[in-house]
This record gives sequence, structure tokens and C-alpha cells, in this order.
Amino acid sequence: MAKDEILRLLREKGDYVSGEQMADALGVSRAAIWKQVQALMRDGYEIESHQNRGYKLTGIPDRLYPFEVQYGLQNQLIGRKVVHFNVTGSTNIVARQMAERGIDEGTVVIAETQNRGKGRLGRKWVTRQGGIWMSVVLKPGIDPMHAASITLMAAVSVTKALRELGLEAVIKWPNDVLVNGKKICGILTEMSAETDVVNFVILGMGINVNNDVPLDTATTVRSELGRKVDRLKLAQSILEELEEDYITLRDEGFTPILWNWRRYSDTLGRPVEVTYQGETIRGIAQDVDDAGSLLVKLPDGNVRKIVSGDCNHLRSLKQ
Amino acid sequence: MAKDEILRLLREKGDYVSGEQMADALGVSRAAIWKQVQALMRDGYEIESHQNRGYKLTGIPDRLYPFEVQYGLQNQLIGRKVVHFNVTGSTNIVARQMAERGIDEGTVVIAETQNRGKGRLGRKWVTRQGGIWMSVVLKPGIDPMHAASITLMAAVSVTKALRELGLEAVIKWPNDVLVNGKKICGILTEMSAETDVVNFVILGMGINVNNDVPLDTATTVRSELGRKVDRLKLAQSILEELEEDYITLRDEGFTPILWNWRRYSDTLGRPVEVTYQGETIRGIAQDVDDAGSLLVKLPDGNVRKIVSGDCNHLRSLKQ
Repeated sequence: MAKDEILRLLREKGDYVSGEQMADALGVSRAAIWKQVQALMRDGYEIESHQNRGYKLTGIPDRLYPFEVQYGLQNQLIGRKVVHFNVTGSTNIVARQMAERGIDEGTVVIAETQNRGKGRLGRKWVTRQGGIWMSVVLKPGIDPMHAASITLMAAVSVTKALRELGLEAVIKWPNDVLVNGKKICGILTEMSAETDVVNFVILGMGINVNNDVPLDTATTVRSELGRKVDRLKLAQSILEELEEDYITLRDEGFTPILWNWRRYSDTLGRPVEVTYQGETIRGIAQDVDDAGSLLVKLPDGNVRKIVSGDCNHLRSLKQ
Repeated sequence: MAKDEILRLLREKGDYVSGEQMADALGVSRAAIWKQVQALMRDGYEIESHQNRGYKLTGIPDRLYPFEVQYGLQNQLIGRKVVHFNVTGSTNIVARQMAERGIDEGTVVIAETQNRGKGRLGRKWVTRQGGIWMSVVLKPGIDPMHAASITLMAAVSVTKALRELGLEAVIKWPNDVLVNGKKICGILTEMSAETDVVNFVILGMGINVNNDVPLDTATTVRSELGRKVDRLKLAQSILEELEEDYITLRDEGFTPILWNWRRYSDTLGRPVEVTYQGETIRGIAQDVDDAGSLLVKLPDGNVRKIVSGDCNHLRSLKQ
């Protein structure tokens, strides 16, 4: 797209580029360049124009635009296509519709805000401006009973990216990342499958970054660090960790991912109460198996396998 | 719909009904009745009109129209909504799109022909005029690893309906119904799911009835019986068996279904060769477990569980 090409020229130069130079480089008229520069300014880019020297990029908007997310991203697969919305219903739904129509693996759908953001089991998930709300289309070729491994993998990737910022991020089984006991990221994995093979997985991630959160059980990167952070850099960092972990999962299987998961887990070893399909189980969270199920040791010594559920960490089983 | 109401009046009377009587019953003009009668005739209905006596239904088209499928159908759930296409890409895809938008459980999508009919793993499935090509939206509330039970259930339902016609139908694991060793029906179960719960299942069924088949490994009801059969009656019979089995599955679980499946199985006890994800396993098909997986006893005495795959029946393991 011409707009992206102009942006690339301005970025690479880091100084004034003349309209004539850009027009030559892109094979269009100077008037066309001016039109696109105006469009960029409407998108929130700050561009100085000078009669003799041309245009200079002086500010980038706080938006997760495809050009910005892809600019400098080290990935081959995840993010090779990025779709951006200022507002949409739910990035998972949009990504699913695209996947149904055969869009490439690695496509990332990002929204500044969602008006029907959702969590597990159709629950509402509040997504205000300033967070990272994105969904990735994956085609891992696994069977449906191993789809939970994608959730656990993503929890590892996000945890690593948050730790690079200096946050003590940990994972709460099955699909949350916590900092100081509060939720900073939720993950929702959905799939389309035949009975024995997954056609595609939609990996949805919501990360509280510079946004406000309505609940005191949730926190944000900004609150934890005491400053606003660069959402673009964090989004890129998450996508890069994700690519690394996904390739590991695909080439070496779930075992190496699971080792990292255990390392960052806040659930293992703890007394927990898990609710799944109306049943509540209390016990000690012992391990996670190769399908991502939680193994809970009951007070009678038996071990129960739980595919998924709502997990509460307890101080003690007698609580 | 007024067209359906006129059809109902004509059907119930079984003789001439005057235009005036119908206009009164439906609260419309006689001209409106005549317009709808013409529309019915364009749909293939044979209707005699007589200046004084009115209209009389004398012939029903060989089409699986919603009104006809629902007329006299004994079901509460499956078929309460029926959508019909003369031609569509794939009834599974249409049903899935409707399910994504929240359509009711039990909706049936029927096509006279499909131009992109599909079998397991995206394989082409030829669907010519004269067969029954339909997909049912189900919301069984099971977890993804038990979705195969829907395939096995449907195989039982179709087998029962074909046996009512006098055919010696048997089931070949995982998703075919055979008569005299040839395929008469294929089943394709697809799902949309989170990692631990199925949002909805699309149960697709293709039954060779009065159509031609391109392969000599396939057969049709017409070839086996030596006569054309009433597709509408067979479709209704399948939907009624399906409702009965689905309610059993929901209320009593998979065990009673599995007993019937074993009874009609042509696979159990046989030497088989199963190919799944590039691996080929030979052994004796011993049983099916509660998730629909095939248990194969290998020559070394070990038992392998196979979630799904392409299964060939062998004469002997030494073949």
C-alpha cells in the first residue's frame, strides 16, 4: 500500500524526505504523495512538511497498526499478515471468520477496543483502549484433545515477554497470567475441528497494558511498573516469543513447552479448588499432563485429571 | 408462509378446495391464493384448478422441501427448522455459518446437490441429484474428545433407517455405512469448540438413494433394492431415528448407543488396516471405547487405540 511505502521511506530516512524523491521512488505524482501524507496524519502520525525540504516523521500514534507491528518484527510466520480494527466485536470472531475463508496461518487480528470481547465459556471480557487485544490464526495439525496445549504455550510466551519488562509474571492454570496475584492477561483458545484433526485454532490473547481495569482482581503493566509502556514493542515481543514457542511445539512437541510452563506456574504445588461442569474438586495441583490437563491429588490420595475449569488458589485445603 | 399454509390446506383436504375457502382461511384475497398456487407449481407441485371446485393437489415434486420434510415428522428437536437449497457449496459449511450466528439446535440444512460436497479431511464427496445430503446443527455440551460419539451415533441412526427398508446395512468404523460391502452413506462430524467444551457440532450425512454413483466401491438404495424409493420418507425416517438416538445419548450417555453400534458393526472382530496421520496399523479390531476410538489388537498382543483414520477391512492379517 502506498501509505505504508511512504511511512517506510520516512522511517528509514529519519529526516526530511522531499516529495519529489518519494514520488519518484513510488512512481506516483507529488500530489498523490501529499494525499497519502494527509491520510497518515488522519491516522495519527505526526508529519512535518517544509516547502523546500519535504516531509519528516516526528510522531507515531499509539495504535497497533499493521505497518508498525510488522516493522522490525523478527517473525517468519506469526504476523506475516496483520489486520487492525479501531473497534470490533471480538478479534476471535473476526479471526475465525477469516480462517473459515482460508486465510493463512500466522494471521494476527488486532483491535484497539472490542465491544463484545469474550473470555472462556462466552463470559464477558472488558477491553478498553490501551490494552493489547489480539487473535492469531494457527493450523497446528493436532487432534482436538491436544488443543489445550496451545493455551498453555501462549501463557508461556506472554509470561516471557512480560518478564522481559521486569514483571514477575506467573501462570495460573489453565489460561491466566498473573502479576502480584492479579490477572494481567487472559487467553482464549477456540478451534474448528473434525473429530480427529483440528482445522484451525484461534488463539485469543488479552493483555492489560496501559488501559484501566474495572476489577481489583485485575492489574495492568502500567500499574505494576508505575509508568506507561510502549504497547507496540510489547506486542512485537509477545508475537516473537509466540513464534519461537510455536515452532518448538510443532518441531519438538509439547514437552519442552511444558517444562517452561512448570517453571512459570503459580498453580503447581498449591492447594486448589477447581470447578468444572458444575463439579468442584479440592486438592493439591500436582502436575499438568501432555494434553494440558491438570492433575489434582485429592485428600484421599487419588489423582483426578481435569481437562479445564475455573481454578482458585487456596491458602490451605481446610480454608 | 402463505405457500406452506395453502399446501397444508390442499394436503389435509386431499380433494378440491375452493379458492374462496382458502382466501377466507388465510385472510387474503383470491388473487393472492392464485399467485401462491402458481408459485407452488413452479416449485414442481402438480395442482389441478377447476373453475367451480377450486384447487386440488395431484402431485408432489421429488424435492426435500422443508414443508414436506416437516409434514408428519414425529420430532420435537431435530428438524424443527429445515433449510433447503436446490444447490449449495456444502451443507456442512452452510450449517456451520448458521450455527456461528446462533441458530437453534436441531436445524437441518438440506441440498438437492452440492457443488463442493466434502468428506473427511477435506476430501471431495460427489453428491448428485437424487441422494440425501443434509447437515444437522447439534449442541450436545460434550468435550471435544467425545465428539466422535456423534459420528458413531449417526451411523447407528442411518443404519436403522436403512434396515427398515429391508437393506442389510452395516457400519464400517469410523464413518461409513455399507450395504453388500459398498458405501451407501458417509458421515462427517465437524465442531466449533473451546479446549474443554464443544460450542456446536455439525453432523453431515450423505446417503446414496436414487442418485448415480461414480465409483464401484459405492452403492445406492435404488441399486440395492432394484427400485426407486421415496427420498422424503427415508429422510424423515433418518431424522426420527436420529432424534431418538440423540436424546438417548444426551440423557443416558454413549453406552446404549455403543451397544447398538457394536450390533451393527462390520468392523469389530475383523483384521483391519488403519491409516492415521501417515502411520499404518494392522491388527484385529477388538472394540470401540467410550470416545469412539477403535481398539486394535496388534500381532504382538498389544492393543492400540486409534482416534480416527482410514480403515480397510482385510481378509486376513497376512494379506
